[in-house]
This record gives sequence, structure tokens and C-alpha cells, in this order.
Amino acid sequence: MSSKNVMSRLLVLSSVGFGGYLTGTYLERKKVTIAGDYVNSARSHESFCSKPGLPIFGTVSAATPIPADSPSSAVVNVSRVGQIMKYGFPGLDNVRSFDDYVLSYDRRTRVAHWVFEHLTPQTIKHNDAVDRAKCDFKPDESIHPFFRSLNSDYKGSGFDRGHLAAAGNHRQEQKHCDQTFFLTNMAPQVGVGFNRDKWNDLERYVRKLTKQYPNVYCCTGPLYLPRREDDGKLYVKYQVIGSNNVAVPTHFYKIIVMETSDGKLEMESFVLPNQKIDNETPLTMFQVPPETVERAAGLLFFDKLARNKLAKINGKKV
Amino acid sequence: MSSKNVMSRLLVLSSVGFGGYLTGTYLERKKVTIAGDYVNSARSHESFCSKPGLPIFGTVSAATPIPADSPSSAVVNVSRVGQIMKYGFPGLDNVRSFDDYVLSYDRRTRVAHWVFEHLTPQTIKHNDAVDRAKCDFKPDESIHPFFRSLNSDYKGSGFDRGHLAAAGNHRQEQKHCDQTFFLTNMAPQVGVGFNRDKWNDLERYVRKLTKQYPNVYCCTGPLYLPRREDDGKLYVKYQVIGSNNVAVPTHFYKIIVMETSDGKLEMESFVLPNQKIDNETPLTMFQVPPETVERAAGLLFFDKLARNKLAKINGKKV
Repeated sequence: MSSKNVMSRLLVLSSVGFGGYLTGTYLERKKVTIAGDYVNSARSHESFCSKPGLPIFGTVSAATPIPADSPSSAVVNVSRVGQIMKYGFPGLDNVRSFDDYVLSYDRRTRVAHWVFEHLTPQTIKHNDAVDRAKCDFKPDESIHPFFRSLNSDYKGSGFDRGHLAAAGNHRQEQKHCDQTFFLTNMAPQVGVGFNRDKWNDLERYVRKLTKQYPNVYCCTGPLYLPRREDDGKLYVKYQVIGSNNVAVPTHFYKIIVMETSDGKLEMESFVLPNQKIDNETPLTMFQVPPETVERAAGLLFFDKLARNKLAKINGKKV
Repeated sequence: MSSKNVMSRLLVLSSVGFGGYLTGTYLERKKVTIAGDYVNSARSHESFCSKPGLPIFGTVSAATPIPADSPSSAVVNVSRVGQIMKYGFPGLDNVRSFDDYVLSYDRRTRVAHWVFEHLTPQTIKHNDAVDRAKCDFKPDESIHPFFRSLNSDYKGSGFDRGHLAAAGNHRQEQKHCDQTFFLTNMAPQVGVGFNRDKWNDLERYVRKLTKQYPNVYCCTGPLYLPRREDDGKLYVKYQVIGSNNVAVPTHFYKIIVMETSDGKLEMESFVLPNQKIDNETPLTMFQVPPETVERAAGLLFFDKLARNKLAKINGKKV
């Protein structure tokens, strides 16, 4: 795929993505009436619970305070974070580590910069004791209330609370599944035709990779891509929803690294517009060079890996 | 000023700000022709100079590597950063410390999140040996090339390279003045009527505060404010310029804390739309509650100060 083709494809994705706002709104049954009010909510430091063990430098936190009576859990948790983040952090803004995934939160958009997962045949194995229906979407109280998204922000917006770390990737323990329901792990996604369809296909595709590869590393996040308007200039434009002005990303990315059983590494990189996508469109249509995503997201993915040492990128030999 | 009034004022600022894009373009003599090309620039790690002493955790850096032959400069520099940042860091993403100001860089927009300065009657005193004309706008090579803004991004865009830390605040040494010309300290600003006029008035106002207050702390940065469109929904929309897609902020803020000689603290907080502003409009028209800026920017300003312990906010007793 030449650079020019890639560029054209991205511009097409970008343009179509904005049409997506229109197609997405047919889902909207109720107008957002509370919006844009930065002012009326008081500076309620009282409701911000700065949990012990949470802030490191104010921006790096652990999801769960380590209980004093279980010293071993610290070791377990740290080593799991080390496994998940084996190939580097894409960025270090407001990092939050959960038991089975790691997240970086963007306080301006109220949507994560990135969410990092490590999948193996074991971690995605179905466990009958884990019930997704028991999980509730819940605000993340480790985030200052000024920057915290709430269920009320999504209500009536027409957008789904779309998982970045998929619930289906974390079913070894109920706690792991529960933790994917923090609103820090959600982004406003078009429901029918995207979150419930093509995006879900991509999530299932990533899980299926564990049949072939013993280790799969997956980084997921939002993009806010520019689009050329009639005046010939490029603009970034995205909707914000709810009283906390949660950003509706124009696109979402997934960058995946697969380890083969003989230690080779392959990478795949996808960008999907946040809109209804035809079911017939193959996922490979959404493959883009990882550099494209890095430039747009302001992040460096898998930076501990020299890209020219990878065996394959997007199915092609490097 | 009631919350409602503040809100109305902010919405007005926001609306007007978008008109500003139109009024701003009369300055534009040449269309931006290179744009949106995330792809064609190669992943040129070679041109990224990771200087010794620069990255701490990959995102916190010192502007100048400390020369081995001057061990005292480390002490001086660290203590100056401590002075400047006395009342807390607004955020910790990609922090970069220069000799006389501190900056946090947003790799996605290619514009700083915030720039922090400490002004005293001494630091702003005119020094005949310091010549602004000797300073050149220069790319900041401590930033990875994927996220670095260049002079070519601004060329022909119709926007000024607007200083966030004002050059006029740093004239004790030529080096201090020089360092304000790194492009990490620049944002695309409307020239006539804004950067060269009302924004400049605000900068001069901040300097003048040192006549009354022995210590003045000033935090400056961009905002990307949402605006309600005809469909009743709120959208964030901003132009991006050049091949690196440098964001054109819709607004800029300044949050200032002044120490009185008897140790009292006062705060002022301004938001100006990035557009031509009538010369007659008094600066006080642009005062907003600091919380408003915090929510919009995703930052907490002067968080070591309890806001209810301040003597005054925006000229009014707290």
C-alpha cells in the first residue's frame, strides 16, 4: 500500500466519519438539554476521594488501593501491569492501572487517551462464574469531579457507552469484568452499525488472534481527526455530550502486537470511523500504518519494539 | 457576578470566537496547501535528538542539558523551577523546564497545555544587553518529530506564532529571551486585533502587576471551547495548520496569582477568544471564574492554594 493510497483512505475515513454524526443521530430519541455548563457545578473538592495509594506524581494511579492485610497483592498487581505494558507506555498522562488492563485518561476530553490489554488463550477463556450482567457502568471516583464523566452525560445523547478495553477480554474473575465498566474505560460510540456491529467484530477478531498467538497486546483509543471543509482548510470537529462535555471521538484505533510461539512479533493497526459501517466491509479495509495513528493521537505505540524488526505489519512482511 | 451571567458571557465569547476564524482569515494571503499529511513523513527517529538529561519517565525534561563543567547551574535551575512552580503543577503531561519558565506540551495538538512564569520587579527589568531582535523562532528538538511544530506549519497560515510565555517577561539574560522563541512556546494566534493588540495588552497588564505585587505567578494556555450549532448540539471545532496539523486554539487563558508584600494572595483569571477584539473592550470583560478554565482545560491551577483562602478573585473579596 503506497503512502498516497493510505493518505486517500484516511481522508475518506475522515470524511465519512463526519457523515457518521448525521447517520448516528437517528438513534437519538431525546435532545441533550443540559450541556456546556462548566460553571454551575461548584468546585466540590469534597466529593473527590483521593484514595491512599492512588496518585503518584498526581497523575499515575493504581485502580485499587492495596489492602494492608494482603501484602502479596501488590506484587501480583505490579507484575501483571509489567506484563500488560511489556512493550512500553504510549504516553504517561494520568495513567491508571486496573487488575487486568491499564489506561491513560484525558482530562480535557473526559475520554481515555489509550487503554492497554494483554490477551492470552487463558485470560479470555470463558468462566461460568463471571457474569457480565452483574456489571454496572460506574463513574471513576479516582478522577477529579471536574473531569469525571457520568452516566447522566450519556443518557439521551444517542451514543452508547462503548468499552475501550472490551468486557469480553476480561472474564477470568468477576472483578476483572467489573473493572471494565468504569466510565474511564468508556467512550461515546455510535451504537447500531458500530459499537454493536463492526467494532464488536474487531474486538472478536482480536480475541480470536489468541488461537494462533500465545500473547496478544492490544492498545485501543479515540481519535479526533481533521477534515477538509469547503473553505479548503482543515478542521477538527467533534460533538461533546452531557453536562461534563464528554467528547465524541470521530474515530477509534486499535494497535495490536502478536507474539508467535517462536518469539516473532507481528503488528496490526486499525482506524474505524465512529459511525454506522456496512457489515460487508472487511476489517482489512480499516488497516492503516501505525505511524498514521501515532501522529494523530500524539502517542508512540510499542516504542520498545524497533518497527523494522517486526516480522509483519498489517499482514505484510516488513 | 452570578453563575448564570458568567455562563452567558462564556457562551458569547465562545460564539464570537468562531466568528474570529472568519475575521482572522483576512490576514491570510496564501492558502495552506500542505496539510493533513500524517503519512508521508517517515518515522524518522534519526532526527529525534534524545539529549542527555532530557527525559525523566519519558515525559518530563529539562530544556538544557546541564554542562559537566558547571555543577552549580543544576542547583540554580532546580531552585528556579521550584520558585516558578511554587503553587503546584496544573498537569504533568510532557513537562519541560526552561531557565525562566516551565511548560507542558500537548503532543496531539502540537500546542502547549500550559506555560508557567514567575515575575518579579527584577525579572522583568529592562536589560540593554538583551535584544529580542537576536531571537529566532526555532523548532524544539526535544519533542519527537511526529509531534513537533515547525516554522513551515505557520507559514502562509494567516496566523501569528504567538508567545505563551511572553518574550517581554524574560529579559534578564539573552538566554532567557531566546528560550521563549522555541515553537513549543508558540500557538497560532490571530495577529492584528489579538496577538499584536488585546492579548499584548493583557501581557503588559501582567507585567505591570509587579509594580504593586513583589511576586506574580502566571499560567497561560490554549482552550478548545465547545459551541452550540444550529442542530442544538455542542461541538468543539478548531482549525489545524501546516503539515503537522498544529491546532488553532479557539481561546486562550491566563490565570494569575499575586502575592502582596504582607503575604496575602489574590487571583485573576482571563479567557480571550482567538480573534480580533475591539480595542475599547476592557480586560475585565474577559474575567471568568478560574473553575471555568479548569473544567475546559482539564487542568487544576494553583492547586496548592485553597481557593477560599485567597484574599480576592478577579478583584472581588472571596
